[in-house]
Amino acid sequence: MGKAWDRVRALWAELDDLERAAAVLEWDQLVHMPAAGAGARGVQLATLRRLAHERLTGPAMAEALAAATADPDADPVWLRAARRRFDREARVPADLVEARSRAGTRGYMAWLEARASRRFAPFAPALEEVLGLARQYADAIGWEGERYDALLGGHEPGLRTDRLRALFAELTQALPSLLEAIRTRPAPPEAFRRPVPAELQLALGREAVGAIGYDLARGRIDLSVHPFSTSFGPDDCRITTRVDPDDFAVSFFALLHEAGHALYEQGIPASFARGPLGGGASTGVHESQSRLWENGVGRSAAFWEWFAPQLAARVPAFSDLTPELAWRAANRVQPGPIRVLADEVTYNLHIALRFELEVALVRGDLPVQELPAAWDAGMERLLGLRPRDHLEGVLQDIHWSDGSFGYFPSYTLGNLLAAMWLEAAAAALGDLEADWRRGAFAPLLGFLRRSIHARGAGPTPEELAETVAGRPIHAAPFLAYLRRKYAAVYGL
Amino acid sequence: MGKAWDRVRALWAELDDLERAAAVLEWDQLVHMPAAGAGARGVQLATLRRLAHERLTGPAMAEALAAATADPDADPVWLRAARRRFDREARVPADLVEARSRAGTRGYMAWLEARASRRFAPFAPALEEVLGLARQYADAIGWEGERYDALLGGHEPGLRTDRLRALFAELTQALPSLLEAIRTRPAPPEAFRRPVPAELQLALGREAVGAIGYDLARGRIDLSVHPFSTSFGPDDCRITTRVDPDDFAVSFFALLHEAGHALYEQGIPASFARGPLGGGASTGVHESQSRLWENGVGRSAAFWEWFAPQLAARVPAFSDLTPELAWRAANRVQPGPIRVLADEVTYNLHIALRFELEVALVRGDLPVQELPAAWDAGMERLLGLRPRDHLEGVLQDIHWSDGSFGYFPSYTLGNLLAAMWLEAAAAALGDLEADWRRGAFAPLLGFLRRSIHARGAGPTPEELAETVAGRPIHAAPFLAYLRRKYAAVYGL
Repeated sequence: MGKAWDRVRALWAELDDLERAAAVLEWDQLVHMPAAGAGARGVQLATLRRLAHERLTGPAMAEALAAATADPDADPVWLRAARRRFDREARVPADLVEARSRAGTRGYMAWLEARASRRFAPFAPALEEVLGLARQYADAIGWEGERYDALLGGHEPGLRTDRLRALFAELTQALPSLLEAIRTRPAPPEAFRRPVPAELQLALGREAVGAIGYDLARGRIDLSVHPFSTSFGPDDCRITTRVDPDDFAVSFFALLHEAGHALYEQGIPASFARGPLGGGASTGVHESQSRLWENGVGRSAAFWEWFAPQLAARVPAFSDLTPELAWRAANRVQPGPIRVLADEVTYNLHIALRFELEVALVRGDLPVQELPAAWDAGMERLLGLRPRDHLEGVLQDIHWSDGSFGYFPSYTLGNLLAAMWLEAAAAALGDLEADWRRGAFAPLLGFLRRSIHARGAGPTPEELAETVAGRPIHAAPFLAYLRRKYAAVYGL
Repeated sequence: MGKAWDRVRALWAELDDLERAAAVLEWDQLVHMPAAGAGARGVQLATLRRLAHERLTGPAMAEALAAATADPDADPVWLRAARRRFDREARVPADLVEARSRAGTRGYMAWLEARASRRFAPFAPALEEVLGLARQYADAIGWEGERYDALLGGHEPGLRTDRLRALFAELTQALPSLLEAIRTRPAPPEAFRRPVPAELQLALGREAVGAIGYDLARGRIDLSVHPFSTSFGPDDCRITTRVDPDDFAVSFFALLHEAGHALYEQGIPASFARGPLGGGASTGVHESQSRLWENGVGRSAAFWEWFAPQLAARVPAFSDLTPELAWRAANRVQPGPIRVLADEVTYNLHIALRFELEVALVRGDLPVQELPAAWDAGMERLLGLRPRDHLEGVLQDIHWSDGSFGYFPSYTLGNLLAAMWLEAAAAALGDLEADWRRGAFAPLLGFLRRSIHARGAGPTPEELAETVAGRPIHAAPFLAYLRRKYAAVYGL
């Protein structure tokens, strides 16, 4: 047989072509498009997305999936991944998708307006609207016990709110005392804050991401306002960065982060292309790859033993940079109100607050008008500081503006998983840092390729944790990693 | 009423979105894509093109067009342009479209192989195949008297082979004697062949295309192997160029040429966007815009009176460049075997040869194996030279390799029309060159906007000639323009 299997693959291939084409249009929009082109680009993207959605959720796909399930030639892992997306998206009425998209645009505009005036009020009605639609969306998908599960499932297949709550509880219990200990010690100097020409920063960044294994013949680096990565297929995985001419760290760590995402996409087998397995296992697993390379590798003492001498030799402003100085600067802890500027210790406290607040919003336990006060109180409780205004408080993130509830936890999952992968890699390969000291990252990448990348979107994050690390997702490796690192950096 | 009219516009808007999305993917492919991405990009483009073709030729469009014809709210100009495309493309069976596309890829590969060995033989069977399919394609579209008409119609709506034959006869009669006269005189020095850093070349090129009216806030300039222009909508019309660090003319005139195309697209009314009127009137009319700015303006004495002092002031290598020297260098005549390097006098002789040969091929009067000999004989007859080998002979152009017969005449039409437009503009506005001498190109652009750009793809080329210049397409203005120019440059 195999006919039903062929048919469903052909349908999915067309869906994937439309989605990758949309990704090219989005990349261009963020990297090259003149601002005046936004109107036409918006309708072009809307058309591509609508056609893709029709293909995913239409009767042809429903029938082909059903028929393929009975086809002995069909790959059950492929079918499971396909079903996971189909079952979610086919349940959502087209007019709700449309309503969310429109309200999201209004929400984003209201958020911009609120930010400009640093007042929450202009944002509140729009947030109320996108929240209401997100609740309807969750109800369309279906849930038991916790409505938030349905939103979370869009990013982390199979993961439940309860599991997250337990993980965040561990973090919010352990991190404040680590932070307190760190704050008793003098902070390292900000050694990366020196002027370096943009071209030189980019050249050095290219070399670094090339050294960790990012294949620039199957990718490219561009500039954009916010760094991101995207994939148009296994052989065209691109990243972007932004350059601060007075701070080497900004572009350098952004490149390592985005290259981590791109390494994942480049490692997904070509045979998965144009199918439901041809991407990462989840948002959090993707984030585990970027965080692993940015923080686990890029902020390690071993990495800077290798890279600091190169910086010192090539960049006049860094002629006195020692590995020790660079490594300590890369691990400065400085609690602040802004998530995207947060260090590894405080970052997950920012996420814990957002998780707590969005679960309450989605449940209906927290009225929108009480959100700013709850935000400020949470910052006080978790980080011991209060934002000066809503711009560095509740208005700082774009996510809620278009109704993207259920996304934030993936950042923390990424951090926890990265530590689990590093522990598993060390158990399998021995002393990773000895490799890094000489700029050899292929053994680690090989481990990630074999154990994670080679499986594409097949496993759930929890399944991946079990098979790679032999344990469910847990916080202990991450906490041990932080304690080890900051004991060394801060001499605790 | 108006429902049928709304419906057909909605269908066409979706078709246009798919085609513009494909244009973005093609632009990226030629400008930024890593070579490794070609495989995935090819299938993505094929999917977009297939979906677009289905939308154009499917039953929904057929019904909507029929219904709209009876809708009093419908715009008849819009409908005529839509019907023109629909009637052509709906007649072609999908498997012939597919067969042409596949044979075209094989033909292109065979052409590359033939070029590498400078032998025609490896190309002959593939050319035979694409020619056979082009004939089938013409037959599917339908023709009377001359099969070539059907191919020509894809580029020049309403134009017949007979008309072209008469135009080319005028040119091949008049140009050789002009060329002979020129060759009795010493050629101007190649004053642009001096080293200028690429960045500076691009900066000066940007200023020049900005001065003629290309709105860079609604476009952008990139580098590619072959310069081209593309439009993703009226507010995002992009051009590319290539830079020869030792020859300022290469990039500069390519930019003026491509900016001419982009000026056309930027001048098409926004209300035409996403519809059949939202493009140029024909390939030849498009070429008339690029040639007008590149040659009519960019190689005029007046233009160089304005621009040469700027070059001399800004580029050390050009410190001694006078307007006279620049203008004469821009109009050097040098018969050679290669079309894309040809000057304004010999260019149309190259096209005349290709037109004559492809009409004979399409008729079946010229067997493919006799093509190389016919080429060389034609070059001897028209240009008085013989190519050293097939690489600078019959294998030089890409067009035939994928079966694009009927395209070449548009280049010559562009030259003829450009001269007609300049004559009409001068009649309407008076002394254009007085404007150009002070870098003022808005009056000319305004004329083109009003008389040509504002009508989009509405008129046929012949209709446009009648309304703008009050005459059918004819060669006299072009020949007069050449005689006037070369009398001055060469002191004839």
